Amino acid sequence: MALLIKNGEIITADSRYKADIYVEGETITRIGQSLEAPPGTEVIDASGQYVFPGFIDPHVHIYLPFMATFAKDTHETGSKAALMGGTTTYIEMCAPSRHEDTLEGYQLWKGKAEGNSYCDYTFHMAVTRFDDKTAAQLREIVKDGINSFKIFLSYKGFFGVDDGEMYQTLRLAKELGVIVTAHCENAELVGQLQQKLLSEGKTGPEWHEPSRPESVEAEGTARFATFLENTGATGYVVHLSCKPALDAAMDAKARGVPLFIESVIPHFLLDKTYAERGGVEAMKYIMSPPLRDKRNQKALWDALAMGFIDTVGTDHCPFDTAQKLLGKDAFTAIPNGIPAIEDRVNLLYTYGVSRGNLDIHRFVDAASTKSAKLFGLFPRKGTIAVGSDADLVIYDPSYRGKISAATQSVNNDYNGFEGFEIDGKPRVVTVRGKVAVRDGQFVGEKGRGKLLRREPMYF
Amino acid sequence: MALLIKNGEIITADSRYKADIYVEGETITRIGQSLEAPPGTEVIDASGQYVFPGFIDPHVHIYLPFMATFAKDTHETGSKAALMGGTTTYIEMCAPSRHEDTLEGYQLWKGKAEGNSYCDYTFHMAVTRFDDKTAAQLREIVKDGINSFKIFLSYKGFFGVDDGEMYQTLRLAKELGVIVTAHCENAELVGQLQQKLLSEGKTGPEWHEPSRPESVEAEGTARFATFLENTGATGYVVHLSCKPALDAAMDAKARGVPLFIESVIPHFLLDKTYAERGGVEAMKYIMSPPLRDKRNQKALWDALAMGFIDTVGTDHCPFDTAQKLLGKDAFTAIPNGIPAIEDRVNLLYTYGVSRGNLDIHRFVDAASTKSAKLFGLFPRKGTIAVGSDADLVIYDPSYRGKISAATQSVNNDYNGFEGFEIDGKPRVVTVRGKVAVRDGQFVGEKGRGKLLRREPMYF
Amino acid sequence: MALLIKNGEIITADSRYKADIYVEGETITRIGQSLEAPPGTEVIDASGQYVFPGFIDPHVHIYLPFMATFAKDTHETGSKAALMGGTTTYIEMCAPSRHEDTLEGYQLWKGKAEGNSYCDYTFHMAVTRFDDKTAAQLREIVKDGINSFKIFLSYKGFFGVDDGEMYQTLRLAKELGVIVTAHCENAELVGQLQQKLLSEGKTGPEWHEPSRPESVEAEGTARFATFLENTGATGYVVHLSCKPALDAAMDAKARGVPLFIESVIPHFLLDKTYAERGGVEAMKYIMSPPLRDKRNQKALWDALAMGFIDTVGTDHCPFDTAQKLLGKDAFTAIPNGIPAIEDRVNLLYTYGVSRGNLDIHRFVDAASTKSAKLFGLFPRKGTIAVGSDADLVIYDPSYRGKISAATQSVNNDYNGFEGFEIDGKPRVVTVRGKVAVRDGQFVGEKGRGKLLRREPMYF
Amino acid sequence: MALLIKNGEIITADSRYKADIYVEGETITRIGQSLEAPPGTEVIDASGQYVFPGFIDPHVHIYLPFMATFAKDTHETGSKAALMGGTTTYIEMCAPSRHEDTLEGYQLWKGKAEGNSYCDYTFHMAVTRFDDKTAAQLREIVKDGINSFKIFLSYKGFFGVDDGEMYQTLRLAKELGVIVTAHCENAELVGQLQQKLLSEGKTGPEWHEPSRPESVEAEGTARFATFLENTGATGYVVHLSCKPALDAAMDAKARGVPLFIESVIPHFLLDKTYAERGGVEAMKYIMSPPLRDKRNQKALWDALAMGFIDTVGTDHCPFDTAQKLLGKDAFTAIPNGIPAIEDRVNLLYTYGVSRGNLDIHRFVDAASTKSAKLFGLFPRKGTIAVGSDADLVIYDPSYRGKISAATQSVNNDYNGFEGFEIDGKPRVVTVRGKVAVRDGQFVGEKGRGKLLRREPMYF
Repeated sequence: MALLIKNGEIITADSRYKADIYVEGETITRIGQSLEAPPGTEVIDASGQYVFPGFIDPHVHIYLPFMATFAKDTHETGSKAALMGGTTTYIEMCAPSRHEDTLEGYQLWKGKAEGNSYCDYTFHMAVTRFDDKTAAQLREIVKDGINSFKIFLSYKGFFGVDDGEMYQTLRLAKELGVIVTAHCENAELVGQLQQKLLSEGKTGPEWHEPSRPESVEAEGTARFATFLENTGATGYVVHLSCKPALDAAMDAKARGVPLFIESVIPHFLLDKTYAERGGVEAMKYIMSPPLRDKRNQKALWDALAMGFIDTVGTDHCPFDTAQKLLGKDAFTAIPNGIPAIEDRVNLLYTYGVSRGNLDIHRFVDAASTKSAKLFGLFPRKGTIAVGSDADLVIYDPSYRGKISAATQSVNNDYNGFEGFEIDGKPRVVTVRGKVAVRDGQFVGEKGRGKLLRREPMYF
Repeated sequence: MALLIKNGEIITADSRYKADIYVEGETITRIGQSLEAPPGTEVIDASGQYVFPGFIDPHVHIYLPFMATFAKDTHETGSKAALMGGTTTYIEMCAPSRHEDTLEGYQLWKGKAEGNSYCDYTFHMAVTRFDDKTAAQLREIVKDGINSFKIFLSYKGFFGVDDGEMYQTLRLAKELGVIVTAHCENAELVGQLQQKLLSEGKTGPEWHEPSRPESVEAEGTARFATFLENTGATGYVVHLSCKPALDAAMDAKARGVPLFIESVIPHFLLDKTYAERGGVEAMKYIMSPPLRDKRNQKALWDALAMGFIDTVGTDHCPFDTAQKLLGKDAFTAIPNGIPAIEDRVNLLYTYGVSRGNLDIHRFVDAASTKSAKLFGLFPRKGTIAVGSDADLVIYDPSYRGKISAATQSVNNDYNGFEGFEIDGKPRVVTVRGKVAVRDGQFVGEKGRGKLLRREPMYF
Repeated sequence: MALLIKNGEIITADSRYKADIYVEGETITRIGQSLEAPPGTEVIDASGQYVFPGFIDPHVHIYLPFMATFAKDTHETGSKAALMGGTTTYIEMCAPSRHEDTLEGYQLWKGKAEGNSYCDYTFHMAVTRFDDKTAAQLREIVKDGINSFKIFLSYKGFFGVDDGEMYQTLRLAKELGVIVTAHCENAELVGQLQQKLLSEGKTGPEWHEPSRPESVEAEGTARFATFLENTGATGYVVHLSCKPALDAAMDAKARGVPLFIESVIPHFLLDKTYAERGGVEAMKYIMSPPLRDKRNQKALWDALAMGFIDTVGTDHCPFDTAQKLLGKDAFTAIPNGIPAIEDRVNLLYTYGVSRGNLDIHRFVDAASTKSAKLFGLFPRKGTIAVGSDADLVIYDPSYRGKISAATQSVNNDYNGFEGFEIDGKPRVVTVRGKVAVRDGQFVGEKGRGKLLRREPMYF
Repeated sequence: MALLIKNGEIITADSRYKADIYVEGETITRIGQSLEAPPGTEVIDASGQYVFPGFIDPHVHIYLPFMATFAKDTHETGSKAALMGGTTTYIEMCAPSRHEDTLEGYQLWKGKAEGNSYCDYTFHMAVTRFDDKTAAQLREIVKDGINSFKIFLSYKGFFGVDDGEMYQTLRLAKELGVIVTAHCENAELVGQLQQKLLSEGKTGPEWHEPSRPESVEAEGTARFATFLENTGATGYVVHLSCKPALDAAMDAKARGVPLFIESVIPHFLLDKTYAERGGVEAMKYIMSPPLRDKRNQKALWDALAMGFIDTVGTDHCPFDTAQKLLGKDAFTAIPNGIPAIEDRVNLLYTYGVSRGNLDIHRFVDAASTKSAKLFGLFPRKGTIAVGSDADLVIYDPSYRGKISAATQSVNNDYNGFEGFEIDGKPRVVTVRGKVAVRDGQFVGEKGRGKLLRREPMYF
């Protein structure tokens, strides 16, 4: 069946114009003025609305075992929440630990998603150890359409790689045309500072930030960049949270290191005082890198506006209040995550575009296009163009409302952005030509979401 | 008459796809797969070619009196050269000196262009003094559709403004929604160093660079940025040539100053040894800021690739061999300019995209889209979208050739890039829907080019 | 008469040892263990005390006309206050305006000091305009023993020099072996921002800081450094107050520009909230550059500890409460100054050495030795060595007290550091071998202080 | 017996004056004008000479096993060479590998020196592993008077510590008041790049530098600084060789991290082209970090002049031509070292002070005083003061000569500085009051040198 979206104002990372979009099957086949449609075409009037390319969240966790428990979302709940918020593609961290078999982990993660997601998805494949067998498995996984790796400089002994493994991973990635995303915090310093604080009786959530100070993230970022420089691999720092780490990344960019930067929405809008409010309210605001001193926020917004920060993701990872309380005796046991898959786009639009801190094209770029380009989804995703997937977001910039756990689709009993005003909202969202959100109501089709196969990229 | 471009690979700053483009009159009205055209439509087959949006040169001189002589191009010769090289819009510096009346100057420059240009154009209006009368005239000129100013921190007493005038200009610009472009070199240091060198008998062209060292440009850039920071105005550094000036500009960007950066094609490919070859051959390579030490080139390419440098222009300004010889007794009398309006796109494509130093989207952005956005021409210019002007470049990436004065359209008896290989070339270029270059031959219509009226922009 | 100081712990910028010091006439002639003295020698027991070289304040104002009034100190009151606080030499700004004759100004300033000072002194000769006559006069003044100039980048039209005059001054200084000290704020921005704020009704002392923001000081510092770089002259930034200006100066140092940095004691200990307290209490805290955001203090202390900041002075300039009220209707009319000539050493010792922020040798260096070296007074002043002037401070590190206007010697009715604790105090102070402070009581001899003739220095 | 040095010009890090120095036993007891001496006093006339405090080399290797061979010097030959060159104290790296017992290593190293050295010495105690037993031994060693540790971030599996061991070492050092010196290169990158180059057949000495590029040293420096920042320990980077590492260290200093910097004399005067000359001539110029691109030299000299680089050592380590040839098949097997213990002072004086790149006080500070202060030898060593050890260097600034292996005292068959001009030379050198070099001839007493016991220092 065909779909015709009429009279909207199309806004992409580099264009802004009024035109109609005609979709045949899953694909945009025509863009033009006053397009006519054959009988049977579904016609949506987008007058007064923006039409954005479907947004991409480059950093989410859906299936995530943590100690004896699991993050709350499934692909069903997570993808519904994503779509309600305008996100039509997400990239999940496929993260078996170093004690698990990499290929089995990949199959496990893939199986959890298959047939369950309302929207398209793919994975960053975590490399949590490096040996010959794992290398061979990674080659298989890349052949299966996964062209990005994830490494952790932190979480020693579990997810973390040491410098030798990092080097080998980057060399393989360079060979295969795979971009490597990295969590950049110094494993040893975090571990030692955690122990030191706990041993001093500093067990509350307010000690989470001091256990992973800004300097520790800056160190990891600089070291990762140096390894990129010496292997020729292309890298991507995930959830960069503070000015010192930004400076380290910018130093690398300035000397030509192919390093890209992601920050996540909590770090733009929340600061460490949220985690200093005591008790479970504070525990809700524990993630890593931690919420930071407020002075960092201006630096992040400025860097985003200038394009120094490339993408904005979420690090979505919902644990509910009961789970957060696992850490009541030690901040190190608090499950990490400030879920935002549903709210990222509205928050970024509101506090960026609507409140005057972000150009609307840079907004589309950071929330969609740049991720598509970096991760091999472009131009299938990330733009509105003939031949592209018809993942479209008809967005109402006149909407005014507030974020609330009471109305969210994410499977969680709180929302870290409770009460935040939003100045816009998706009215209609399509997944490859099929309407999944209509008039703000969810009408998606379970299992419509597919694993996106991605090709090697040689930057 | 309608125009249909079929089977090309459309490449914009954020998209890449195969589709047909249908143009009615001056405007793109439809983009789609397998478009059909009514009888009488001109159909161009772009199979195997790229289709780029028309390129924009944000920095050219056409009418330019210098001492008792004039730069060699007229709008007729200049716009023909531009189109042959894929540039469909240029922004000329309208630069009366501080001893002339601003409004009269504007009328003079406007008159030189009117009816003579094959392609569209607009002006950066130079503010070379600031007083009440001039301010009133500038308001008139902005109302006439000019939304960018140009100031010179150098050329004291002729084009240059002092700090007080700069402040007033920026305040007015902020009020009017005008972006201010600036030539950033310290006037006093240049003047004093010139005198010092000449007094020491250092009169040859090899002394031009030492008379305006890198530190002098860095100083101007930092000072301009500080004035932006304290007025709230938006700025744009023209022809940034070296790492120290880049560092100064990046420092400002990093603290949120709305400062954009242009570099020009000679600084990416030529270095100061060209101006040290002696005699008139050296004089051909005199421009300001001067060609620099070669180590700066990597910094410029890296910054361009990262998007730190926003645009690439030319500072096109042709003086022929005889004119260059005016400076045979003193480098300060050499007419400045290394003309490149015709070669910029091919050089940037070749040494950037084709040789692996620049992403193709960033190429389009830097050579077209970003200038359109910064100077109020977007989305009319700078992209390929429904509703945009049909300024299109069908580009043959399989072409191999060399640059030569013997075959150029620029009105000059030499070419500073003589012998440089190029890896691509425009086959067809259209100006608002009308073919101006066909199969590499010029078929343009004199006077088709119009002055582009631009609206205030509030960044 | 001879003087023998026994049993003290001698501490200089690079030494620390217990020994006796024997002084004949004005000069140290012997340092040793268990020195014996001929009959008639005055013997002072310094057991349990430190013996420091006399401290040098490199930046004070004594004679200073401001509008229709004058700073409160005379050389008699100022030098007494200096000695009570351990300062045995000061360098006064000799600052005729650009409307006055330079040589006459010098004679005037010199005359005010002659015969009146209890301690030695010299001048930084302000260059507030540059022309042939002034240049000739400056040569005379240098021959008279003045080997440092002072320029103001701010105070346009009164003290300020423009870029051309700065260049000429630096060239002359280079030729003559004179170091140039500079007040680095952009004249035009300060002037314009003052006008803007006043025109908006922002007239109170809390608007003083916003009228000369950090960026304005950073700009001046960077520009001054660039002029040094291009003339080969040696420079010295006075009263550097903030991190951005420090960064600018450090950038210059790192590329080898001979630039030295002075900060003054108020900026280490007071912040801009003092000037936001309203009314005359706030006016007491007006100086330029202004007191800054508190975050700058750590940067200054760190830089001082590392030796990046070379010297600590005062910019001493007392105006009393009645005079401060001249600015009650406009912050621009408030006489500038937070006097500290008497308290500098004790404050720096207390909040630096005693409270663990500063190595004791670096303290001596910053408060004495480095100024002696930079300004041609070394080794006559600034150290304890055979042949050096016997300017000695016997300092009691066990003293505990508080600063108070009630007990000060400075001729003023308030003290900006009122109530600040101090952890040490001079017990005995000598001026060229003669005791001027004994047991904390002033016993100085009026007119003992001499103008110190200084030789050219070729750095 | 007493010693009187008459008529010299005493130059310390902060003083310069003419006076006589009287020494009783091992100690300076009096400094004064026209001192008289009792009968039997040895009197040395230093007219026209400088008298410097004995110089300290903070970084030498004497006893050093390498594969099946040993560095050529013994304490006897090494200390003689040191004294001939004006160095009266050296600090040897006591460096058992991680496979050896730390305390046994210490005893071994100590035993090699005892009774054999002509001059005083002490050790930096290498921490090449960290466990409870080692920690206990380190406490013993500190009690024995060793207050500085050495760690290697490079040389994984042999000397190198991992991040966990580094953290523990710094914590212990902080507790004990010990400064930690560090060789800062990323172990993994060096190892991997070595393997990669060798596997590509790149086995010659010219590949040594590419195997440990500047970025690898910058990374190590930044990481070490971050660990200091998070433990509160005080650190000292040894043999910093390049601008990127300097930038990393300066960033740390600027944010208040107590980090000090040593560079060694080869990096100021030699560049990597020396190691590109082929064959054994090139092998003589292999050390780590390697000789660098020449552009780094200006940065090092500037930083030294400014005091950003604190000390200048040698990393003295002589291997002769035959030993160097062990690496003829693989650059990784070339014994490292460019010996300079004898030439450091003369080279630094010549190319620093005499050729106008370094203030004479900064020279004394960098080559003597600062090391004394940082390593707990001050004021016993590092200055000329009453109570200090009479380690004195009477230096002839009028000497002109050249460095040559033919005339050196170092036990080696070549000299890396062969043919370098020197503009000065020690005439007389004393070791605690006893003449060891007289008129340039060695007259030292074997075994006079003692192990210097040093106390904990709490910075």
